[in-house]
Amino acid sequence: PNKVLLDLNINFGTCVGNSTDGVADVQGQFRGFSTRADATGSASCHATKPDMLNVHLVPHTHDDVGWLKTVDQYYYGDRNDIQHAGVQYILDSVVDQLIKNPDRRFIYVETAFFYRWWKQQSSATQQTVKQLVDEGRLEFVNGGWCMSDEATTHYSAVIDQMTIGLRFLNETFGPCGRPRVAWHIDPFGHAREHASMFAQMGYDGLFFGRLDYQDRAHRMREKEQELLWRASDSLTPPMADLFTGILPNGYNPPEGFCWDQFCDDPPIRDDPDLEDYNVDDVVKRFLAIAKNQATVYKTNHIIMTMGSDFQYENANLWYKNLDKLIHYVNALQAKGSKVNVLYSTPSCYLQELHRANLTWALKTDDFFPYADDAHDFWTGYFTSRPALKRYERISNGNLQVICNQLEVLGGPVSRKGPFGEGDSQTMKKAMAVAQHHDAVSGTEKQHVANDYARKLAEGWQHCQVVVSNSLAGLSSSSAERIYCDNLNVSVCPLTDLLLFIINNTDPMHLVHVNCTCMCFLNIIHMTKYRKLNICVYVLQFLQVTFDPDTGLLSSLSNLETKQTIKLTQNFYWYNASDGKNMDSSQPSGAYIFRPNSSTPFGISRTAKTETVQTSVVQEVRQWFAPWVSQVVRLYTDSRTLELEWTVGPVPIDDHLGKEVITRLDTSIKTSEIFYTDSNGREVLQRRKDFRPTWQLKQSEPIAGNYYPINSRAFIKDDEDQLTVVTDRSQGGASIQNGSLEIMLHRRLLYDDFRGVGEPLNEISSIFPEGLVVRGRLLLSLDRPPTAADTHRPLAQQVVLQPLFKWFCPVSQLRTHHVACFSGLQAALPPAVHLLTLTQWDKDKVLLRLEHQFQSWESKRNSKPVTVNLQKLFSTLDVLGASELNLSANQWKDEMSRFDWTPQTDHSDWEVTLRPMEIRTFLLRVRLR
Amino acid sequence: PNKVLLDLNINFGTCVGNSTDGVADVQGQFRGFSTRADATGSASCHATKPDMLNVHLVPHTHDDVGWLKTVDQYYYGDRNDIQHAGVQYILDSVVDQLIKNPDRRFIYVETAFFYRWWKQQSSATQQTVKQLVDEGRLEFVNGGWCMSDEATTHYSAVIDQMTIGLRFLNETFGPCGRPRVAWHIDPFGHAREHASMFAQMGYDGLFFGRLDYQDRAHRMREKEQELLWRASDSLTPPMADLFTGILPNGYNPPEGFCWDQFCDDPPIRDDPDLEDYNVDDVVKRFLAIAKNQATVYKTNHIIMTMGSDFQYENANLWYKNLDKLIHYVNALQAKGSKVNVLYSTPSCYLQELHRANLTWALKTDDFFPYADDAHDFWTGYFTSRPALKRYERISNGNLQVICNQLEVLGGPVSRKGPFGEGDSQTMKKAMAVAQHHDAVSGTEKQHVANDYARKLAEGWQHCQVVVSNSLAGLSSSSAERIYCDNLNVSVCPLTDLLLFIINNTDPMHLVHVNCTCMCFLNIIHMTKYRKLNICVYVLQFLQVTFDPDTGLLSSLSNLETKQTIKLTQNFYWYNASDGKNMDSSQPSGAYIFRPNSSTPFGISRTAKTETVQTSVVQEVRQWFAPWVSQVVRLYTDSRTLELEWTVGPVPIDDHLGKEVITRLDTSIKTSEIFYTDSNGREVLQRRKDFRPTWQLKQSEPIAGNYYPINSRAFIKDDEDQLTVVTDRSQGGASIQNGSLEIMLHRRLLYDDFRGVGEPLNEISSIFPEGLVVRGRLLLSLDRPPTAADTHRPLAQQVVLQPLFKWFCPVSQLRTHHVACFSGLQAALPPAVHLLTLTQWDKDKVLLRLEHQFQSWESKRNSKPVTVNLQKLFSTLDVLGASELNLSANQWKDEMSRFDWTPQTDHSDWEVTLRPMEIRTFLLRVRLR
Repeated sequence: PNKVLLDLNINFGTCVGNSTDGVADVQGQFRGFSTRADATGSASCHATKPDMLNVHLVPHTHDDVGWLKTVDQYYYGDRNDIQHAGVQYILDSVVDQLIKNPDRRFIYVETAFFYRWWKQQSSATQQTVKQLVDEGRLEFVNGGWCMSDEATTHYSAVIDQMTIGLRFLNETFGPCGRPRVAWHIDPFGHAREHASMFAQMGYDGLFFGRLDYQDRAHRMREKEQELLWRASDSLTPPMADLFTGILPNGYNPPEGFCWDQFCDDPPIRDDPDLEDYNVDDVVKRFLAIAKNQATVYKTNHIIMTMGSDFQYENANLWYKNLDKLIHYVNALQAKGSKVNVLYSTPSCYLQELHRANLTWALKTDDFFPYADDAHDFWTGYFTSRPALKRYERISNGNLQVICNQLEVLGGPVSRKGPFGEGDSQTMKKAMAVAQHHDAVSGTEKQHVANDYARKLAEGWQHCQVVVSNSLAGLSSSSAERIYCDNLNVSVCPLTDLLLFIINNTDPMHLVHVNCTCMCFLNIIHMTKYRKLNICVYVLQFLQVTFDPDTGLLSSLSNLETKQTIKLTQNFYWYNASDGKNMDSSQPSGAYIFRPNSSTPFGISRTAKTETVQTSVVQEVRQWFAPWVSQVVRLYTDSRTLELEWTVGPVPIDDHLGKEVITRLDTSIKTSEIFYTDSNGREVLQRRKDFRPTWQLKQSEPIAGNYYPINSRAFIKDDEDQLTVVTDRSQGGASIQNGSLEIMLHRRLLYDDFRGVGEPLNEISSIFPEGLVVRGRLLLSLDRPPTAADTHRPLAQQVVLQPLFKWFCPVSQLRTHHVACFSGLQAALPPAVHLLTLTQWDKDKVLLRLEHQFQSWESKRNSKPVTVNLQKLFSTLDVLGASELNLSANQWKDEMSRFDWTPQTDHSDWEVTLRPMEIRTFLLRVRLR
Repeated sequence: PNKVLLDLNINFGTCVGNSTDGVADVQGQFRGFSTRADATGSASCHATKPDMLNVHLVPHTHDDVGWLKTVDQYYYGDRNDIQHAGVQYILDSVVDQLIKNPDRRFIYVETAFFYRWWKQQSSATQQTVKQLVDEGRLEFVNGGWCMSDEATTHYSAVIDQMTIGLRFLNETFGPCGRPRVAWHIDPFGHAREHASMFAQMGYDGLFFGRLDYQDRAHRMREKEQELLWRASDSLTPPMADLFTGILPNGYNPPEGFCWDQFCDDPPIRDDPDLEDYNVDDVVKRFLAIAKNQATVYKTNHIIMTMGSDFQYENANLWYKNLDKLIHYVNALQAKGSKVNVLYSTPSCYLQELHRANLTWALKTDDFFPYADDAHDFWTGYFTSRPALKRYERISNGNLQVICNQLEVLGGPVSRKGPFGEGDSQTMKKAMAVAQHHDAVSGTEKQHVANDYARKLAEGWQHCQVVVSNSLAGLSSSSAERIYCDNLNVSVCPLTDLLLFIINNTDPMHLVHVNCTCMCFLNIIHMTKYRKLNICVYVLQFLQVTFDPDTGLLSSLSNLETKQTIKLTQNFYWYNASDGKNMDSSQPSGAYIFRPNSSTPFGISRTAKTETVQTSVVQEVRQWFAPWVSQVVRLYTDSRTLELEWTVGPVPIDDHLGKEVITRLDTSIKTSEIFYTDSNGREVLQRRKDFRPTWQLKQSEPIAGNYYPINSRAFIKDDEDQLTVVTDRSQGGASIQNGSLEIMLHRRLLYDDFRGVGEPLNEISSIFPEGLVVRGRLLLSLDRPPTAADTHRPLAQQVVLQPLFKWFCPVSQLRTHHVACFSGLQAALPPAVHLLTLTQWDKDKVLLRLEHQFQSWESKRNSKPVTVNLQKLFSTLDVLGASELNLSANQWKDEMSRFDWTPQTDHSDWEVTLRPMEIRTFLLRVRLR
């Protein structure tokens, strides 16, 4: 690919920076700088002392992109009655303080906030900030739009949010603004897929703060808090290898050394004329903490995170005392002290670890579930706010499949056309914000959850214009389109309207816009049903039986593979602990799942049923309680059984919080093992009451066995694999042999003391009695060696299934003509998923192709596969292509130390994808 | 006096400043400046618009010199768990923000804090701050060491604390640092004597925030919130005339416009791309408030105080939003708005009021008592912490009479001599801090009260060295002196020691150092008593009778004037409201006095008595209860009756808070009128249930009639005047005809919701059962026309009576020789009080002479009196003298617009004092 052709306006390359060598500070310290030896970053790191314990002080703020307040309230410092936090002031203050002393350092993380601030600055301030970045005094870490949640996000949305954040930094600051370190200090457990993505984005390392308390204790004993995470079982090392550091104190400063305006720790009082001169005491306490911390890490470098949530709004308090701390601690070196303290950044610290040239423990599993105490498992949020989780997921599908791709396909007219001005950017930002670890996670306050949804809805509005414009161009008809956005929660007036649905569940066919017009799939209001009374449903591929006494499922058969399992399914609820009469005072809440008994209550032992059959679909409708029902569906042409559940309003008249699950009990011999995906991508094995890297002492037999399910979970033995594909992120577990349970909904009466300060009790004007949630589980029964051939494309279809519907009046239908076409020249190979196709700038599009199979899971598909970029699109000429790193902020060939090898077996236009590989391209295109 | 001779090193003169005319700000506003027309100040005031309503925004912080935290804790921001407040950061932040935009203004008040900060700054920062001061961007207002309390302070200590604060500003910033405005926004009521002092210190005006809620309502109706205060009935106007402004909202910003980090008001959100754009709403609310405020003031200028307690620690929050407010409000002028908003200072605002050339209401009384609601009279603090009030008072006496004057007398050896290095500066600063309105007022937390006392004790230590050195020089003997500082609370081991007492109660005789050696006055431990049983005590001047049935006083006679009154005296307590069962929920507390009944409980109807008589004194000892006793004393050579009361520990076993009074009931026909002094100086008339300037609706018949007594109170009719001289500040009232009550001690069980957050319940290791307090009331019975001739010198004696005692071993006594001498050439005339004699610098001393009689109170003494400065001292040659304003930060002849008239009837060395006049001189002296 001809990178040079694309190089214009792309601000990549290597950070050179300007060393500030020789600038004296107030105390006359740290006049010397060493430039990073590996020359990959911009920071001018302070010199360290090889014969001493070097303490790296990292000033930082952790700015949630929404939590107790909305992202805009946090930015402006509005609603400080809820929480005092104003990001605009943080950035104002930090920049001022960095200018005052060139020794000082700061890191910034969340580009969603930085971007807002930047555009309000004068050009003089912008120039100053650029200089601070160039000199490594202000360093961006992570740099995505937000710090994404790891348990409930889908990799496609995470890659997107990282891309828009990093793109802003790149375009604003060039290579010196490119983060070298991933910084996930707050998420509540850590996904292996996140580590894999970070590695592929070119990060040198990852730091985080939260992990299981037993895991931490073990790692402290073994000095394994710094490790090498091999984050893929498919990608060739070191492609997905990521150095990972566990911070010593979450992301907080050591006890007694918090000097923010929110803290009460004693400032350094160094005027001997005033009372309470405390320098000696402060220095003594600091040295003790530093030496103690050094005993649980491997090198003579340790890191201290000097900051916390929304800190540095008045950075002077921090820096004034840190300046003094550094001065007085280092002054003791003249008296023989062997402790050297310095302003630092994560990348400077990481560089020193790299220089240490040691060996590091290897980890291949993940960091779920996270418990911070024996009865405090953060496994509730895997399911919290199921409606928001679904809305985020369908928004993603629409953005990826409809909005982005129709924008590319339609050309400039998509953004400005007969239906006005539209954009995909609003939805991209709304989706990026929604990836935050208090957004889709469901751990924000109710009004903030509403704001995330509002932002997504606004994104839909902007996308609808793009779609209308694009379709008008493609169909040469500007007939009015009417959108019905609330189809999922209300019924549209269908009189005089005819429903059109884009059923592009396979993103490869994303541009077959109108080929499926008139399909009534899943729109039951427009289908006439006929009641049937037979207890066996047989279609082309599957057979399902129901117990006539209970009305529950009793077996499932795959007619092609001739396999049958016993399968019963029912709904239950765990009684959420209220924290009042248990071993600990921990209640269930937005974060924490803590049932007060390991045995869930059944909703009902039997279901009232009703059956419906058409030529397209057979349904059994089950009623378990006024607030729990289900439709079991078999479509004629489908290999999956659909369970469409409806739960809510969860009753709380009995003053008991409820965590509602559905449980599948099968004849499969699971040996206490089940499998879950990581961020919708690679699958990990889970074993009951077991952690791969330490001896678990299980204290919560249910909550301690819950894992996040993003897109699928399965159980299997040698003969059978039952895969469940979900339509949103949920928590799940396998407590009994052959069993798989998935938590669907939660309604709780107590806050769980993790800061959100509200019980998770969703009520709205639409649902005044409590939130009703509907969703689907898709079941697939296969032989294990071929199961992935089914569930991989199935899961992609569910994830990316657009619910974007539009309408045109019946009266206009006859005159409404659209030619059927596909944007692809030919179908892609089954292993290849078109992950991203989106407009980058005027004449370039961003393309990501991925191999969607793990190396071990399919004999047929787990092989390298080759695609020709020039032969990809039917309506676009690809004039040039350059490969980038996963986050599209660096040329792929500059990402690694290895030289790029231009000679291959393929032409320049052909790219090979190995299992689980994602490759990212910038294409220069022209509409044909 | 030859001012030129002294002019060296004195940084007086006129502020010229540097106009910053023409500097553009961010918004392009306020590029024009007008220089103050009267050319007396340094500020370059922003131009106003004559045809508009001009809103002067005054950014400010109110930094208590101790309250919930000690002054040093406040400075450093220590103990932020008690209250978040760190003055070092406030000044850091404000200076940074002033630099950012030349339009911005700030005022600073408390030099105790500013001084600490200044000495820690680099010379570059100091230079920057000087420039800000020169340009009027940073303006000092008030400028004393603290913002003194007005109800419980003595004028001598207030003048001192103002002097050291203003001297620092003068020496640091020159004339541009000289405050033009007195700023007493927080004190809880306002003393006329304070206004008089401010006028004599050269202030252009006074602003304050607190006054009686009925008074404010009345003044709002009448537009009399800005007025002319004629603060003396003796000094010739306009000597004590002071323009006085009552601020619109205490000292807080208008509701909804507080943008400090402590506030939750919505910031200005002016980015239309973010949610909740609110500029229109903010501007609308602001205009409504401004227009409403303008209806209760006289001119088309109004002031808004944009700040509050310890605000501006992060000044960016304030200024960023104020910048926007000014920009958006003034932008509406283009659309016809007639409101102009600007950054301003009190002196700029005052200048506009002066230019308005209107007439203003005249006020001649004071602003006591202060009530902020019907049952919320701030009259408890007149007595709160009686032991601290006494310690402050005796510290003042020692500083004025012993430490300052012996330092002058002894010459340089006083500060560095055989006993080491000493100074008066430590005591001066401790005393200055103690004048703060939450210090001697007794309204601070217990640990802070302890710190004030600790600071005073440290001052005593430093003074003792000065005294020892000075005496060693004067006596040519460096025999060891042993000090017994705790004589007032414990008993010294007197074996082998002989007690020496300096009895310089008359400051005119301050330098008669050892003439009164061996006087055993008031040291009962060393006097052998003989019990007497006679029921009538007659000495040279007075006769007292006791009721033999009750043991109480029954009459008092003056044998010289041949007058007799009935006089009974007893002890009572008011039951402090607990706020639980009354018309309002207001309890009594450190600030508030609120008895739950107007009838006090008697301690006992009778007293057990014991009598003692020596050649020096006759005593009757009365026991009323285990916790209340009294010694009634007549000294042989005294014209006053001494009542030495002891109260405590006040019992609280009954869970009732108690406010203990003593009440004198006499046959004097008082017509519900009594008299109290103002800050120990001029006396004001008080009438029950009456206020001179508005129709009082009395809602607290006891608390609403209490007034502060600093040194004396009296009742009188045509025949008799009974004057009570107190030994500390106390509250008092005259509820019944002929009656005078004084509150002695308070022990309370509830906080009174004014912020201190503690009940006033004093317990210490010395007094684990509750504080015991001892004090003295001196009674004088006279004919009204001559009463002042007695009580004026008597009160000075009590105020300035030093308790500084020192000891030398008996074994050394015989070899211990000191020549008796006086530092004065001759006694001063009775009307003249030597208020201040203290070392100013190497060869200069500061001298204040005052006429201590009001114009109407003594036929003999209320006349002008002349003193010759060169003939004043016995051991000092006065080489030069220049007169200054009262606070010694300006030449007297530069203080007024009037030309100095060099031709007088007197020589250059002779000065005339008119009634109540204080004159302040800087003398260049040489020891003879």
